[in-house]
Amino acid sequence: EETLDSIMKKLKEALRDGGNRPSTVTHTFSCTSVKALGNLASCPAGMIATGCSCGFACGSWNVQNENVCHCLCPIIDWTLARCCQLS
Amino acid sequence: EETLDSIMKKLKEALRDGGNRPSTVTHTFSCTSVKALGNLASCPAGMIATGCSCGFACGSWNVQNENVCHCLCPIIDWTLARCCQLS
Amino acid sequence: EETLDSIMKKLKEALRDGGNRPSTVTHTFSCTSVKALGNLASCPAGMIATGCSCGFACGSWNVQNENVCHCLCPIIDWTLARCCQLS
Repeated sequence: EETLDSIMKKLKEALRDGGNRPSTVTHTFSCTSVKALGNLASCPAGMIATGCSCGFACGSWNVQNENVCHCLCPIIDWTLARCCQLS
Repeated sequence: EETLDSIMKKLKEALRDGGNRPSTVTHTFSCTSVKALGNLASCPAGMIATGCSCGFACGSWNVQNENVCHCLCPIIDWTLARCCQLS
Repeated sequence: EETLDSIMKKLKEALRDGGNRPSTVTHTFSCTSVKALGNLASCPAGMIATGCSCGFACGSWNVQNENVCHCLCPIIDWTLARCCQLS
């Protein structure tokens, strides 16, 4: 059980910089790839598409709803979505 | 108004793990696309280009100043920048 | 040296919202490009590939181990990895 003395000791430490101690929270940035047949590839829930890759050497694509890669060339056999998130 | 008693109660709670309570701050990772005519597309202020898409099926590009997509094929009608930020 | 009075003053401020003050920690999202000869380009340690660019207009690529860009067209002179991190 905390006593006034033990709390005072912790407080002096904690308030040394005015109470603005660094947070212990760390975020992690991570990505994964999703490849699908056809000209669309959807990121998993909660992830955002940061780039897309297309079959047949095609470099023309756009992103729908921030999480679906859409390859734009007339003939596309596969689409890959590069999907990232903060966790 | 806080009293010594009410403060002591909060402190016992707050210092239970030595004062290293999880932060309530949450960051959000978000992206948007910017499409422009020609071979350059610029991200909005504060955003960074994570990938680029080019017209005419071109998959060759680089990023200038971390926020401008530059498509490298000789003939390019449009350029798309995929732009992301932490907020 | 802190006194009970000075600590009490800081505490009343700090606990005004129940002790859940916003953290002063800020994360930064940053990216860089790595270009290499051949069909592979590796991100620096700690960075993740968010997209890839390939020579010869090729837009077909995948990512190995989350940090290596691999261009998939038969003939590739250079590969560029777009590499990002949270710091």
